[in-house]
Amino acid sequence: MTKRFKPISEKIPKILHGADYNPEQWFDYPDVFEEDLRLMKKANCNVMSVGIFSWFTLEPEEGVFEFEWLDHVLDRLYETGVYVLLATPSGARPAWMSKKYPEVLVTGKNRIRNLHGERHNHCYSSPVYRTFVRRINSKLAERYKDHPAVIGWHISNEYNGGHCHCDYCQERFRDWLKERYGTLEVLNHAWWTRFWSHTYTSWTQVESPAPHGETSVHGLNLDWMRFITDNAMDFMREEIAPIRKTGSELPVTTNFMEGFNALNYGKFKHMVDVVSWDSYPLWHRDESDADIAAWTALNHDWMRAMKGGRPFMLMESSPSMTNWQNVSKQKRPGMHALSSIQAVAHGSDTVQYFQWRKSRGSFEKFHGAVVDHEGTEKPRVFQEVSKLGEGLAKLDDIVGTKVDAKAALIFDTENRWAINDAKGPRNQGLNYEATIRNHYRPFWEAGVGVDVIDMDDAFDGYEIIVAPMLYMVREGVAQRLEAFVKGGGTLVTTYWSGIVNESDLAFLGGFPGPLRELTGIWAEEIDSLHDGQTNEVKFPDGRVYSARELCEVIHAESAEVLATYGSDFYAGMPAVTVNHLGKGKVYHIASRNDAVFLKDFTDQLLEEKGLHNGLTESLPDGVTVSERTDGERSWFFLMNFSGQPHSVPLQKEGFIDVLTNHTHKDSVHLNANQFVILTDQ
Amino acid sequence: MTKRFKPISEKIPKILHGADYNPEQWFDYPDVFEEDLRLMKKANCNVMSVGIFSWFTLEPEEGVFEFEWLDHVLDRLYETGVYVLLATPSGARPAWMSKKYPEVLVTGKNRIRNLHGERHNHCYSSPVYRTFVRRINSKLAERYKDHPAVIGWHISNEYNGGHCHCDYCQERFRDWLKERYGTLEVLNHAWWTRFWSHTYTSWTQVESPAPHGETSVHGLNLDWMRFITDNAMDFMREEIAPIRKTGSELPVTTNFMEGFNALNYGKFKHMVDVVSWDSYPLWHRDESDADIAAWTALNHDWMRAMKGGRPFMLMESSPSMTNWQNVSKQKRPGMHALSSIQAVAHGSDTVQYFQWRKSRGSFEKFHGAVVDHEGTEKPRVFQEVSKLGEGLAKLDDIVGTKVDAKAALIFDTENRWAINDAKGPRNQGLNYEATIRNHYRPFWEAGVGVDVIDMDDAFDGYEIIVAPMLYMVREGVAQRLEAFVKGGGTLVTTYWSGIVNESDLAFLGGFPGPLRELTGIWAEEIDSLHDGQTNEVKFPDGRVYSARELCEVIHAESAEVLATYGSDFYAGMPAVTVNHLGKGKVYHIASRNDAVFLKDFTDQLLEEKGLHNGLTESLPDGVTVSERTDGERSWFFLMNFSGQPHSVPLQKEGFIDVLTNHTHKDSVHLNANQFVILTDQ
Amino acid sequence: MTKRFKPISEKIPKILHGADYNPEQWFDYPDVFEEDLRLMKKANCNVMSVGIFSWFTLEPEEGVFEFEWLDHVLDRLYETGVYVLLATPSGARPAWMSKKYPEVLVTGKNRIRNLHGERHNHCYSSPVYRTFVRRINSKLAERYKDHPAVIGWHISNEYNGGHCHCDYCQERFRDWLKERYGTLEVLNHAWWTRFWSHTYTSWTQVESPAPHGETSVHGLNLDWMRFITDNAMDFMREEIAPIRKTGSELPVTTNFMEGFNALNYGKFKHMVDVVSWDSYPLWHRDESDADIAAWTALNHDWMRAMKGGRPFMLMESSPSMTNWQNVSKQKRPGMHALSSIQAVAHGSDTVQYFQWRKSRGSFEKFHGAVVDHEGTEKPRVFQEVSKLGEGLAKLDDIVGTKVDAKAALIFDTENRWAINDAKGPRNQGLNYEATIRNHYRPFWEAGVGVDVIDMDDAFDGYEIIVAPMLYMVREGVAQRLEAFVKGGGTLVTTYWSGIVNESDLAFLGGFPGPLRELTGIWAEEIDSLHDGQTNEVKFPDGRVYSARELCEVIHAESAEVLATYGSDFYAGMPAVTVNHLGKGKVYHIASRNDAVFLKDFTDQLLEEKGLHNGLTESLPDGVTVSERTDGERSWFFLMNFSGQPHSVPLQKEGFIDVLTNHTHKDSVHLNANQFVILTDQ
Repeated sequence: MTKRFKPISEKIPKILHGADYNPEQWFDYPDVFEEDLRLMKKANCNVMSVGIFSWFTLEPEEGVFEFEWLDHVLDRLYETGVYVLLATPSGARPAWMSKKYPEVLVTGKNRIRNLHGERHNHCYSSPVYRTFVRRINSKLAERYKDHPAVIGWHISNEYNGGHCHCDYCQERFRDWLKERYGTLEVLNHAWWTRFWSHTYTSWTQVESPAPHGETSVHGLNLDWMRFITDNAMDFMREEIAPIRKTGSELPVTTNFMEGFNALNYGKFKHMVDVVSWDSYPLWHRDESDADIAAWTALNHDWMRAMKGGRPFMLMESSPSMTNWQNVSKQKRPGMHALSSIQAVAHGSDTVQYFQWRKSRGSFEKFHGAVVDHEGTEKPRVFQEVSKLGEGLAKLDDIVGTKVDAKAALIFDTENRWAINDAKGPRNQGLNYEATIRNHYRPFWEAGVGVDVIDMDDAFDGYEIIVAPMLYMVREGVAQRLEAFVKGGGTLVTTYWSGIVNESDLAFLGGFPGPLRELTGIWAEEIDSLHDGQTNEVKFPDGRVYSARELCEVIHAESAEVLATYGSDFYAGMPAVTVNHLGKGKVYHIASRNDAVFLKDFTDQLLEEKGLHNGLTESLPDGVTVSERTDGERSWFFLMNFSGQPHSVPLQKEGFIDVLTNHTHKDSVHLNANQFVILTDQ
Repeated sequence: MTKRFKPISEKIPKILHGADYNPEQWFDYPDVFEEDLRLMKKANCNVMSVGIFSWFTLEPEEGVFEFEWLDHVLDRLYETGVYVLLATPSGARPAWMSKKYPEVLVTGKNRIRNLHGERHNHCYSSPVYRTFVRRINSKLAERYKDHPAVIGWHISNEYNGGHCHCDYCQERFRDWLKERYGTLEVLNHAWWTRFWSHTYTSWTQVESPAPHGETSVHGLNLDWMRFITDNAMDFMREEIAPIRKTGSELPVTTNFMEGFNALNYGKFKHMVDVVSWDSYPLWHRDESDADIAAWTALNHDWMRAMKGGRPFMLMESSPSMTNWQNVSKQKRPGMHALSSIQAVAHGSDTVQYFQWRKSRGSFEKFHGAVVDHEGTEKPRVFQEVSKLGEGLAKLDDIVGTKVDAKAALIFDTENRWAINDAKGPRNQGLNYEATIRNHYRPFWEAGVGVDVIDMDDAFDGYEIIVAPMLYMVREGVAQRLEAFVKGGGTLVTTYWSGIVNESDLAFLGGFPGPLRELTGIWAEEIDSLHDGQTNEVKFPDGRVYSARELCEVIHAESAEVLATYGSDFYAGMPAVTVNHLGKGKVYHIASRNDAVFLKDFTDQLLEEKGLHNGLTESLPDGVTVSERTDGERSWFFLMNFSGQPHSVPLQKEGFIDVLTNHTHKDSVHLNANQFVILTDQ
Repeated sequence: MTKRFKPISEKIPKILHGADYNPEQWFDYPDVFEEDLRLMKKANCNVMSVGIFSWFTLEPEEGVFEFEWLDHVLDRLYETGVYVLLATPSGARPAWMSKKYPEVLVTGKNRIRNLHGERHNHCYSSPVYRTFVRRINSKLAERYKDHPAVIGWHISNEYNGGHCHCDYCQERFRDWLKERYGTLEVLNHAWWTRFWSHTYTSWTQVESPAPHGETSVHGLNLDWMRFITDNAMDFMREEIAPIRKTGSELPVTTNFMEGFNALNYGKFKHMVDVVSWDSYPLWHRDESDADIAAWTALNHDWMRAMKGGRPFMLMESSPSMTNWQNVSKQKRPGMHALSSIQAVAHGSDTVQYFQWRKSRGSFEKFHGAVVDHEGTEKPRVFQEVSKLGEGLAKLDDIVGTKVDAKAALIFDTENRWAINDAKGPRNQGLNYEATIRNHYRPFWEAGVGVDVIDMDDAFDGYEIIVAPMLYMVREGVAQRLEAFVKGGGTLVTTYWSGIVNESDLAFLGGFPGPLRELTGIWAEEIDSLHDGQTNEVKFPDGRVYSARELCEVIHAESAEVLATYGSDFYAGMPAVTVNHLGKGKVYHIASRNDAVFLKDFTDQLLEEKGLHNGLTESLPDGVTVSERTDGERSWFFLMNFSGQPHSVPLQKEGFIDVLTNHTHKDSVHLNANQFVILTDQ
């Protein structure tokens, strides 16, 4: 029996294809709406996200609501065969609201309140704003919860946490701290406030970090970021509650962002039923697109893993270029389909765009869209969208299937905050994010699935866990890793791990603190290298790799030494070790090594664990494969990001191309920016 | 009969030679004033700009005026044979005024009012400031309008628009918007405010752009800049009115600035009777000074064209170095005369300096001046000034003559604002200004005169109009260009043209919008290239040029394809086209091409139109010629900016050197930094 | 009879060895204090700086004092044989104080008051803060002035001047100006305020510089910096007074900083009995550490010269790495001892660290310390500290000895302020600091002692004075230099000297102003060169050096021309001159020449004056020597910063290694990062 997740909506058990749609921008152009409907069919679209920035149009003055236009939009979309993700409009508020209730606006770090303008410029704590949000959400839910077109709720837009420093936020922050610490004594210890005489003797002395106030108490900085996430979650709860109160059981989502850091998605993910995100890779910077493709894949894998592998939604992407990057390159022919299908390959059940039709004016008028200012189906971009839609319509079988990852990579947001906020040991760049990318890359090159998780996620079911720079080790994590290893797992740790606890207090007694027994090493010192400086990592078999930026000076305790440093005062000391524990083992990499090292090291790991993609033993550079499966049948997405044509040998005959029904013999040829979807059944 | 403009002042129909003069700085040094008079004669000066920052000295406390010192200065200057441009002192106000009436100071974008300090730190809307200005100007005009030394009014100094965000300015901005749009409905459409729910429902909701408020509504940004210009004009009107009220008919001017962007000189020029500007080229950065010379020439041509070719004034320049650039290089021997004569060659009837005598203290004490801290006529700089003055005295015949340009280059300030404010397609650099320079350069190299105009200027009388990146096409411009072309003119357009209307709203129906029929092409997409990336532009005759930064993907409709792209997905598509219309034609250049392309292309254009300098067919690199004419007789200024000696062949014998009366045979030799002025009569 | 200074404390006439000690950070860890005492003995420490940031622990609420913990700390330290520098705690204040009395916090240049946070965030003028400081200092002094452990007062921490712009500070600044100038007339002349109409007519119009107010009046900027220093001195007087009032005669010090510019140490030094400073060189950026070693030596020589050669204290240094630089490199084995002994070699009688034990949390938890988070004596860093302590214990004879410098280098803080604030002639970099370093370097390479002084220091006793870029020449300085030269001294001056007086008013009548007769030259112009541009300095004997950045165009008047320029319009004009005056002479270097020039030039100078180190005639690159002497006996510190092993030939046999008692023959071998201390008696 096949095992798969349910589709996002039972109403439409297909790969969703569509865009953000803002018809209210075109009210002055009466022909545009019906022309849009005609073009949506042409473009093979079946879903639109509606109402994302419509607050003014829904509530043009305080307490005056206008829904007729939206009734009409939803009705006509439904008649046209297009389903709707209905948005709550809190991402931007009408000018009348800011004018009358300035408290709805964000107060900056400098304690000066913003003026009206932009989007996302609202205080998550403001009682007034919350009241307005509850009311409009409630009205929307009541009116549209049973509309046949509506298949889900798109809550607000790209939540960013607000990062408001107003008095309401200060008050809520203090309450949050009271809840967390109980007493100031506990807080003072956690923040190590005797340093620089910073001890608090009254809660009212506590304030959020400020450039002209406190920036150096790392515990405060960290807790402020945690509060931001929790406060955003609280705000989002208040967005969702009136919807649920109407009895609506449609899934809620909000669009997440690439590599986003200002909220801890590791917690925030619990607010949504389905994860969705906005992906805007900047293709064609280099001759090969492998780098950007691997980074995008990493993000897809992060989003997918957030809900235990449940398919996510590619909520926004550009069918051509964006307008906000430094250089707006057009997608070359094929790249639009390739990058869209990459999302599906990594677990998305949708391909959606920002936006349907280019704005005529203001900030995003040059952002790519399905329909150009030109206005017809003639442009290349429209044609490519339409053709992709044709293909997606053939992938119904893939809906709800999984990516069955046996390896996990820990990319933990609190750890990231703490590493980036710390002073030392390399303020010029500790490069946690790049390190994560570098450890991910060899898996992508091998076409082996990886879940990108945080340290509080479950470790069950993985064969390999890679935990680069696990600087912060929160309560219980070491024990859970130990259980994972003893049960047969392979854990990979690196330099600058086991340094602080969840309050950013250094572990006493020798690094890597709670990981010391697990890794079997003592990390005495960490040496930073200037840009351009290197050391060597030497293996007994003669292999020599290059290390840079960070070299930890470690002593093997119970661990076995696999490689040693080649120079500086720690020449001959351990550079790579392995520690055997129960049925498993722990590799420790003491220095930041080059890409060749990571490739060789990871390939050996995969070899040891017998992990490989099921399609081919030979992937050219820049070509990768991702597998979706329902447990019985598999689909292999073979994708060429190399910018060059390649032939890929298949490990057996008989793979069928899902889009063409062509059966392949021993190899498949891919042009630049081309993909195929193969199945063996 | 010769046709020429009148001299700036009938009192002195000569090339004016002089400086800003601030005798009040030296009141504590009683011998200095008479020594200055002696040195002015030595330096062959005949004009001084007086009173530019003299407000405190004129009005040392509120309502207390002291003019005796100025009476004495003007009388003695006159007795010495030196005429005066008398300034109004509003460029900086006394401390007593800021202290008592803080509203006179600028309020920043952050809505915080400045403290007293610097210059140009005043609100153009402040009723108090306007009152003070009216009074002091009135008193100056009454007292000196008939003084024999005074030949014109130097209004304030380097108007910059103020860019104040105080409540007065907000109020005036709203009034300006009401005047422009009539209703909020019209404004909302023009600014496309449905985007991000930005619709205004009350005029009081409108505020100027702010870093902590609105920055993304391009229509607002654009109108704010327009308001700044209009408000500055209104302020200047209030400066001039009390002068005219006294019956003074002397010309007014204010000093403009190089490539200035914060005011739209295309409108602001209407406030002055004579254009004047401050030119501070940074010579000797490279071995050849051609680049900076061409840019300076472009500015001269811009200033001259503002008043339909009427001679302008070089109001300020440094006889040696300035003190504010990164590296203050001394002018090498000859360069002072050469750069001064360059202004005259391009239409200036004056050579003036900032300043006469170096300040002893404060910000500009190391700025070049005629008289050094050393204090005598001994230094090299003084000697070069004096020698130049000798030469200028021989150029009376040139006063009032024209530069008869048959080509025009559109460099439009509103277009510049809009291009630079837009998001996309290449935020890393759309480089409008550099593009203008690049299109200007081949004309300069050919020694062919160009008027630098804005799109609202008249197109009559030109043979060629080059309109690079005509992103914004204001109402009526396309029609006027069409008439120009049909009448036999040649128009050159480029990529990123015909994109938005005057509200920065994109043209619908296909780019280049209103220029589509004119150019005979449809611009489907524009591709941005990263730094270092290139494409090729190939002509059938085998010529290949390099393109970078921006490549528009165009389709020839009625146009003929002259060249095609060499690579990327648009290889083989049109890169250069020509469209025939009536008696004229329109060239369209789809990509940003290299300097060689622009040189070859422009030379061919000049060839087609039979335009050439009347002096020589062979100008070495870095050597150029500019012609002034009264319609019957011409003066050719042959100038060597190459840093190397060169011989230049003359197209005929008999040219006479105006300064030496030497008659040249078939060629003329120029040392580095040397010029000659030749006439054939 | 030997002549030497007294030891810092008669209680312990030894080289002091210790650290900042903050036991209150560990109150929650009851075993740590006694463990610290045990480890201090292991580390051979004999002094600790206590209480530096202890204000909260001493006064946990307003008026409530807790000293018992400190009693216990001092008692136990004393019992353990560790002496104490007792700190006043004003470097950071408790949160309760900021909350109740916000006036204690700094108001920024933007006139916005800081929030509580960081350290050093206090207004030096605040009456409230001064009252609190007086009270706590008084209590500390009363209680501990006679404690046997206490040997001196460590006043506050790293005084930075506060740079507060609150109303109190404005008021005090105006009072300071009244005191300095008497009348506004005098001030207006000194600040040259007629420029830009800036004349003040009331003291209330005067405000400190502000980014949104005045920044361009250089006289104001300069006086504001002077006021900052004087106000800090006034504040420090108020810190010291209550201590002296108790009758305590223990020496006071406060820790100075490397190359510090925000206070004028040339004046501030008068506040302390003993100079101490915090040295954090960033070793191992390059293969050779010579650059950073020479710069560190320069700082040591600056600190030593402040008190006429009296030994100073190395108050803080890191035994391993710091945490605040871009790249935190570990000190390689030997470097800790070498860099510590370098301080002693240049006149320190102490080697002290920040800090004893690494903080567990907050900003400095990764800053090097004697005791690591690991917590025992096991780490390499602890072992190196301990071993160094063993060696220092053998250097009792060196305590109080001098470095007998015959050369002085003028590095004047007011001059530095004025040069850096000036506009022109090379805003991209006048590089005064680097110039000082470059002139110092050849002395360091020769192992010849230099005092680094300001222009108000005495010139007696020197053979050579090098005065690079003596832009400002204060009243009387030229006369004192003349006396120095006439008495037989050699003075070296350079380009950009003798330009302004102490009010930053340019000298009239020809540069170098008051140095014109002394140097025998007239500096007509100064030319700036772009990066990459060079000129040549040619000597008649064929030597050619390279000049860059600044070339002064000078005329020899009474001076003899030694070298001339090679190119540009001043080719052939003087580039190096010498002027003979009385028994001495003045060299003038007109351009910024390369390192080879400075080396050759300085070596010749030393040759002329017969100055050389007493140890060796051949120092390899990166190896230097510094001598301490009591007038009869000398100790030579031979130090290898080259990163390579070297053998150094000795100029005679019989030098004894003070640490090993080994007698050297004709040479001594040094490994990388090794030193020896040799004496010949």
